[in-house]
Amino acid sequence: MDTAGKVIKCKAAVLWGPRQPFKIEEIEVAPPKAHEVRIKIVATGICRSDDHVLEGLMKDKKYPVILGHEGAGIVESIGDGVTNVKPGDKVIPLFLPYCGKCRGCAEPKSNFCYTLISFCSIVKLTGLMSDNTSRFTCKGQVIYNHINTSTFTEYTVVDESSVVKIHDDAPLEKVCLIGCGFSTGYGSAVNLAKVEPGSTCAVFGLGGIGLSVIIGCKIAGASRIIAIDVNSKKFEKAKELGATECVNPKDYENPIHEVIMNMTDGGVHYSFECIGNTDIMVSALLSSHLSCGTTVIVGVSPSLSTISFTPRLLLTGRTLKGGLFGGFKSKESVPQLVSDLMAEKFKVDGLLSHKLLFTEINKGFELLHKGESIRTVLTF
Amino acid sequence: MDTAGKVIKCKAAVLWGPRQPFKIEEIEVAPPKAHEVRIKIVATGICRSDDHVLEGLMKDKKYPVILGHEGAGIVESIGDGVTNVKPGDKVIPLFLPYCGKCRGCAEPKSNFCYTLISFCSIVKLTGLMSDNTSRFTCKGQVIYNHINTSTFTEYTVVDESSVVKIHDDAPLEKVCLIGCGFSTGYGSAVNLAKVEPGSTCAVFGLGGIGLSVIIGCKIAGASRIIAIDVNSKKFEKAKELGATECVNPKDYENPIHEVIMNMTDGGVHYSFECIGNTDIMVSALLSSHLSCGTTVIVGVSPSLSTISFTPRLLLTGRTLKGGLFGGFKSKESVPQLVSDLMAEKFKVDGLLSHKLLFTEINKGFELLHKGESIRTVLTF
Repeated sequence: MDTAGKVIKCKAAVLWGPRQPFKIEEIEVAPPKAHEVRIKIVATGICRSDDHVLEGLMKDKKYPVILGHEGAGIVESIGDGVTNVKPGDKVIPLFLPYCGKCRGCAEPKSNFCYTLISFCSIVKLTGLMSDNTSRFTCKGQVIYNHINTSTFTEYTVVDESSVVKIHDDAPLEKVCLIGCGFSTGYGSAVNLAKVEPGSTCAVFGLGGIGLSVIIGCKIAGASRIIAIDVNSKKFEKAKELGATECVNPKDYENPIHEVIMNMTDGGVHYSFECIGNTDIMVSALLSSHLSCGTTVIVGVSPSLSTISFTPRLLLTGRTLKGGLFGGFKSKESVPQLVSDLMAEKFKVDGLLSHKLLFTEINKGFELLHKGESIRTVLTF
Repeated sequence: MDTAGKVIKCKAAVLWGPRQPFKIEEIEVAPPKAHEVRIKIVATGICRSDDHVLEGLMKDKKYPVILGHEGAGIVESIGDGVTNVKPGDKVIPLFLPYCGKCRGCAEPKSNFCYTLISFCSIVKLTGLMSDNTSRFTCKGQVIYNHINTSTFTEYTVVDESSVVKIHDDAPLEKVCLIGCGFSTGYGSAVNLAKVEPGSTCAVFGLGGIGLSVIIGCKIAGASRIIAIDVNSKKFEKAKELGATECVNPKDYENPIHEVIMNMTDGGVHYSFECIGNTDIMVSALLSSHLSCGTTVIVGVSPSLSTISFTPRLLLTGRTLKGGLFGGFKSKESVPQLVSDLMAEKFKVDGLLSHKLLFTEINKGFELLHKGESIRTVLTF
């Protein structure tokens, strides 16, 4: 049946408010307007930052909302003026858009597109398309989108700047992880930290992002990769993916940065915070070599949290930095990362701990809360 | 008269306690022990960080003390085992030592020598030589040294790791600034930030360090160099040295970072905090481009101050870093910087606002407090 130009009725996991279970509802998805793309989602991962919204930790977030931003699917139809994808194309929605025109896209070292209605204080999350309306309704009510993607639904609509075509043979149940978790972690190691052969690394937090950082550190040739988590059940997987040592802070009386300092004769070259906890960000900073250590903040912290430390920690020569999506310019990099995965330059299989039906989404978040999953992928 | 091996009686500016004037006293300077060097100081600059000690802002600082760390002089005598300098050599004392053996010296990207008894919390300022004694006494009392240099005295004794020979024809009244202020500012631009041709820069604080940052930004080819200070009297000199625009935050109702954001369509590529004020560090961070801006903390803040901000400022792609002595490995770089100055690759004349006799040291600090001097050089 040709659905182009028509409203599609389909299932979506609607979050009606914070700290509630998702409800599988029948929703209406309007056709894409000009420069928009409607996508049939085939697979989507569950990411910790979705959970921040579920927990009500994101300031100004609008409910009801359809979360999810780590998906892969097939273009169902396109609005006027769309040239970069066509119906039937396999695509990945991009929570970090690329308009190609703004100052952010124009800067060679930047991957932040100014069309992103986003994290930082200078722009706000509206949950709406660029014309300030939504394409989602349910029971007569507007449903907001989530960072321009909303992949916890059978169909979604995104701006053309927030979607990119990938290889026709791409395995969507795997490559959806390139839409967020894998790229964020891997890129944090290879792009943001620029880990060098023979260097030492410490990775705080062994969820999907932290494990992807480990994959990046290993590919970059790090000689030591110290994996840190309060849940020792994570260590087997970390070692499988490249960690050379694993440390549980609960096993020590000393603060974790002292443990790392002692293990490494004064600190690692590169440390990564993959949780979004400001105290652990400072621990990561203190664990880095005082005169040439680089700490990368990968984890997304709740809105109102602040990091505090004496600037002398930096004055001896340390660097503290952050980045979204591992520093990758999304539209340029995602197709290449998909091709690299297909060429087995790296694997994401180790990150895929659970596969569930989309309708089992609440179980997926339960696995996340219990620390039992790395990445759960929902299929439709 | 051959003074080698003998105690030298000479004049020094002793600071008997915080918030007191310096007193010109006759002191005794013991001969250098093994691996130590006694230097006749010929010229020394007055630096803001000396003033922090004068004001009592440095935790654990021991008094009475001989301050000063930006000097140049001539080797008077050497202790056993010293091979890198000999009597008669023109030298610059190095507040940032280089032992060549520790992990810091061995790291290619580090310039922090672990023999530095220093700033950071892991080591303490002892004010003593490596054998835990002082070479200075006055009226029967031990006088402490200052970061292994102590240049506010006719004669000082330093460890061989804290001194380097420079060109025989070097003009000591100028090159003393290479011992701290010039190198710190210039290196912060060219080494730490790695300012690129065509990039935009903002420099907060137009003392000797800030102006040296401007010299570095200009030599690196920055297209815009925005100089910021609450004292508009500093602007003429800033423009002379390379600033393309000058901004006084007092002239605006908006916070200074908004002013810089507006001037630069969303922030500069590189911002520099050259004061040591944690609030201004955050302003500098906010003034940098959200996805590719780098902020360098150059100013030394009082001991107990902390910097606080939401990590989201970094998460969009910003970098915050710091460094001592502009990231230069001191012993390798200082002789080269002296030669570069003599070859007129850069000039420091613009930084030398006042020349006073050493005995007029209190007047020199008065000029600093009033914001009238850039660098005062004391001669002996």
